[in-house]
Amino acid sequence: MSKQELTLTAPPAAGCCAPISSAALDAEQAAAGAAAFKALADPVRLRLLSIIASAGGEICVCDITPQFDVSGPTISHHLKVLREAGLVDCERRGTWVYYWPIPERIQWIAGLLATPINPG
Amino acid sequence: MSKQELTLTAPPAAGCCAPISSAALDAEQAAAGAAAFKALADPVRLRLLSIIASAGGEICVCDITPQFDVSGPTISHHLKVLREAGLVDCERRGTWVYYWPIPERIQWIAGLLATPINPG
Repeated sequence: MSKQELTLTAPPAAGCCAPISSAALDAEQAAAGAAAFKALADPVRLRLLSIIASAGGEICVCDITPQFDVSGPTISHHLKVLREAGLVDCERRGTWVYYWPIPERIQWIAGLLATPINPG
Repeated sequence: MSKQELTLTAPPAAGCCAPISSAALDAEQAAAGAAAFKALADPVRLRLLSIIASAGGEICVCDITPQFDVSGPTISHHLKVLREAGLVDCERRGTWVYYWPIPERIQWIAGLLATPINPG
């Protein structure tokens, strides 16, 4: 599946919930949100996501791994968690795997935390 | 300390980082962000924060606890984690403790995930 097709696909939970500042979440919504936040609750994963999201397109895993002091398998594990959370996707091409962010999913999580700024 | 004074105080990490979609986080920024996301990575805590943030001001713990099936001490533990993460604050008045959200801190976390929508 090409990157183009993927970014046109709505993420599973898009539009699920109003921001927490406007309505309380029910138990099911809270479980979905907490699972997404759990994917971001690790320093290596959050930094990985920031590297992928700020790459301006896609990025080769060969350009990601050297930025960390941890092992390749550890990076692979964290990339898998981000992928399972729907925050990034990837494609193998020859020797290397290329990653790109899923902005709709990141926006969904950010939207949960949206608050009115200087209301009135 | 009154609520008024607290909401005028800048949160510790406000303005720390550009959104992850515009710049990669360094290890220190990622640690601070991941710690904040960890506070949101539990369904009970996320639901608690949504109840407090959507209350339109402050809310008595006596109006929060009945909304959950878990025990009072469990709720207290999760409220403490939210408070230590700087997401809510509270004040005891007589028998009850009253909670309110810290919007600046919630906005800081949301800001980490900000992404351009339909750029160009």
